[in-house]
Amino acid sequence: MVLPMPSIQNIYDDPTFHKGYRALRQTGSGLNDVLEQPALRSMLPESLAGLDILDLGCGFGDFARYTRSQKAASVVGMDVSAKMLASARQMTNDNGITFEQGAIENLTATSFAKRSFDLIVSSLALHYVADYPVAIANIARLLKPGGRLVISVEHPICTALAAQKWQQDAAGNDLFWPIDNYRDEGPRHTNWFVDDVIKYHRTVETYVNGLLDTGLQLTRLLEPEPVTLGSNTKWDNHRRRPPFLLLAAQKQ
Amino acid sequence: MVLPMPSIQNIYDDPTFHKGYRALRQTGSGLNDVLEQPALRSMLPESLAGLDILDLGCGFGDFARYTRSQKAASVVGMDVSAKMLASARQMTNDNGITFEQGAIENLTATSFAKRSFDLIVSSLALHYVADYPVAIANIARLLKPGGRLVISVEHPICTALAAQKWQQDAAGNDLFWPIDNYRDEGPRHTNWFVDDVIKYHRTVETYVNGLLDTGLQLTRLLEPEPVTLGSNTKWDNHRRRPPFLLLAAQKQ
Repeated sequence: MVLPMPSIQNIYDDPTFHKGYRALRQTGSGLNDVLEQPALRSMLPESLAGLDILDLGCGFGDFARYTRSQKAASVVGMDVSAKMLASARQMTNDNGITFEQGAIENLTATSFAKRSFDLIVSSLALHYVADYPVAIANIARLLKPGGRLVISVEHPICTALAAQKWQQDAAGNDLFWPIDNYRDEGPRHTNWFVDDVIKYHRTVETYVNGLLDTGLQLTRLLEPEPVTLGSNTKWDNHRRRPPFLLLAAQKQ
Repeated sequence: MVLPMPSIQNIYDDPTFHKGYRALRQTGSGLNDVLEQPALRSMLPESLAGLDILDLGCGFGDFARYTRSQKAASVVGMDVSAKMLASARQMTNDNGITFEQGAIENLTATSFAKRSFDLIVSSLALHYVADYPVAIANIARLLKPGGRLVISVEHPICTALAAQKWQQDAAGNDLFWPIDNYRDEGPRHTNWFVDDVIKYHRTVETYVNGLLDTGLQLTRLLEPEPVTLGSNTKWDNHRRRPPFLLLAAQKQ
């Protein structure tokens, strides 16, 4: 087990954050569930059967368990949060799933640093990582030739301003989404259950070229919209500006 | 010579538009000159020597003349505007440059429809084209194996709202750039020198996947910022939201 270095943010083990986040995910109807996860799964290889898979930022292990239900050969789930991994371990006794505590910033120090994978997934984790090019280079090294990478992040349109709020009129109606400081990449001090959750804003350019610079080939870019939700207008605002950016790439 | 079909917009031959646009370009210090063209040229192959080049939306022919100064073997410049082509022809007597009137929507009907090119460039033209996937498929067919495509468009962040204006406070200060209707792709009726210039808003997803869907490999994505302009604060707002999206791709 690799413990996160002090400089690495682990907001998920903050008691207040953990309680709020756990409750959100347990509803099964958050934006992750209805929009981000379906988009991410649409970008996976057609069959997961027999694949060795790595999930960076595995949280409660939902994706790890899903891939095993699709006949993945093995899954390693890594997360920085001890509390989330404890829950993840309680939810499975599958010998094909291994959970390990660790940080994306420290990939080279993990127990799987010498392994290689057919598929690496990282869902909504990389916008917490300060050095994206180094992270991607370390991730790409863990892919087999022909292996695939699928990542999702909060969309740069959403992370540009730390407030992450709709501009509203006096009556509280959402008028439009404000953008500013787009080219100023770096930390954004946001509030999500607790104060001062640090996210890193990056441009679409940086997210895409970071993959290309490691020699990966981009195979898909998605800015998913909630199309399948029928009359549930709760999600309509997410057509007005994209909440997520997803990228799929393949190693040559 | 292929005349544009009636359904194809040719705002550049509107007398009022032409006068305003010509004056803007003649300053040599518009946003095209200081930001878009340097970014586009940074995405070209290292040497243009001996290449057969096609410029779709060539305007006054600046890029065509530039490529010949870099020893391109031949350049075809196509534009929908008869007035701009007349000016372009007056500015050169180079036999290696051919200008032809035509529309990107009608590529298959041009005199060069059976030729193939090492490099195809389209600068700030494709956001006037209604059917992007068909245009890209027709363009990709004109590339030699290994040939390269470089395109620039107004950034989707800028085209989402037709108004294309900063949100200002009462004193006229630019507060932030508003986004709305991002996923609603389609025409935007804008004002640029004249009323009702029609631009087509598309997502970054559509621009990128349109290239991938034709089998092209993405080699670079840029959202350029005005970094080299020193103390000229006139352009600072373009760091606050990206004015252009540029994509480079290669045919397998």
